[in-house]
Amino acid sequence: MERHMEEVQADLVRRLLTMGGRAEEMIRLGSGALVGGQAGRLAEVFRLEEEVNRLHLEVDERVLSFFARYQPAASDLRFAIAASRMNADLERIGDQAVNVAQNAGAMLALPAAERLLLEVPRMADLAIAMLRDALDAFARRDVTLARSVIQRDDEEDRLKRESLLELVKLMQADGAHVPGGIALLLIARNLERIGDHATNIAEEVIFMVQGRDIRHPNLPASED
Amino acid sequence: MERHMEEVQADLVRRLLTMGGRAEEMIRLGSGALVGGQAGRLAEVFRLEEEVNRLHLEVDERVLSFFARYQPAASDLRFAIAASRMNADLERIGDQAVNVAQNAGAMLALPAAERLLLEVPRMADLAIAMLRDALDAFARRDVTLARSVIQRDDEEDRLKRESLLELVKLMQADGAHVPGGIALLLIARNLERIGDHATNIAEEVIFMVQGRDIRHPNLPASED
Repeated sequence: MERHMEEVQADLVRRLLTMGGRAEEMIRLGSGALVGGQAGRLAEVFRLEEEVNRLHLEVDERVLSFFARYQPAASDLRFAIAASRMNADLERIGDQAVNVAQNAGAMLALPAAERLLLEVPRMADLAIAMLRDALDAFARRDVTLARSVIQRDDEEDRLKRESLLELVKLMQADGAHVPGGIALLLIARNLERIGDHATNIAEEVIFMVQGRDIRHPNLPASED
Repeated sequence: MERHMEEVQADLVRRLLTMGGRAEEMIRLGSGALVGGQAGRLAEVFRLEEEVNRLHLEVDERVLSFFARYQPAASDLRFAIAASRMNADLERIGDQAVNVAQNAGAMLALPAAERLLLEVPRMADLAIAMLRDALDAFARRDVTLARSVIQRDDEEDRLKRESLLELVKLMQADGAHVPGGIALLLIARNLERIGDHATNIAEEVIFMVQGRDIRHPNLPASED
């Protein structure tokens, strides 16, 4: 029985890592199309989203039966809760990656002179690296790596703010930049959200391994 | 023991409803400031966010100890999982409401002639109604009401798309509309996300009551 529970856990880990790998590929395809100026592989993103959504349902079903069958306690309970939360974050990363692809498609429909990139390719690289490291931290139960993901989120937010300020200037100066500016703004926002979800996953790894909830660090001590 | 579990469940329901009520108030304050042209009560949003974040941690702690103590099965297990997911959605609604307030503040810092509203007040009313009804559906285990929340999400998405098209035209025609247009675009996006989270909560109610997972309805049948 004990052995079997470990197999079920290993199966859940594999499915979550597969889901994360697909989501990572979706972001890569979207940002690659944007940077390369070619919409050719964007359709692949929508196919991958179906796979991510199917895994989302499968993981939740399996987490539910994991609870029902093993009545997990202590670290096994934290594993199941972390798996359930990660699953939700990965599904939303998939949604955001679809939005990146859609907005990249809108950008590529514009004349080349109206397309904008600014710091957004750097934001995409950072979001992909944060997601990959969050997944590695989960696979290896590596709290140090998880903490490094959380630290990088500030950089992602900074790049988004800078891009936004620059975009406002460009669009004000020339109305021809408005459609490209809006598409880029939305992509920057999607990538920022992907960074937030990668941060959530990293927090879930720390919770799973250490049993500590490190979210909302700025709250005053609870009166509870 | 059985009786006690019901009390713990009732306590969780109360906390989630309180959290949802606070989040609703946050959206109302942000959109009220935007429509009324007065930033006076926006600071209240940030105070409420602290409360929502504190409840977020408390609910997750209590869900964890609910699992550990009662080893719930069947509908009690679904309740605990739904509570955990709802908690995450409510916390994110709080985040989005903070963004609404920040962007409303940016809008109100502009000269009155550069402020824009378009269909965004309607989007705010709809998001608030969806959240309120999702919470009522949870409190009353009302699947019919939960389904009506899910149906209204299409209207929210439609209003967002129309506002976006209109904003692009306004900003292209006159660069003076760019800062207000961007602030309004971001608010529209925040409200759309709030509608998505209210939809998630409604789906969680249906899962809790009926044990059916109705997410991703467009997936082809699983091969699994």
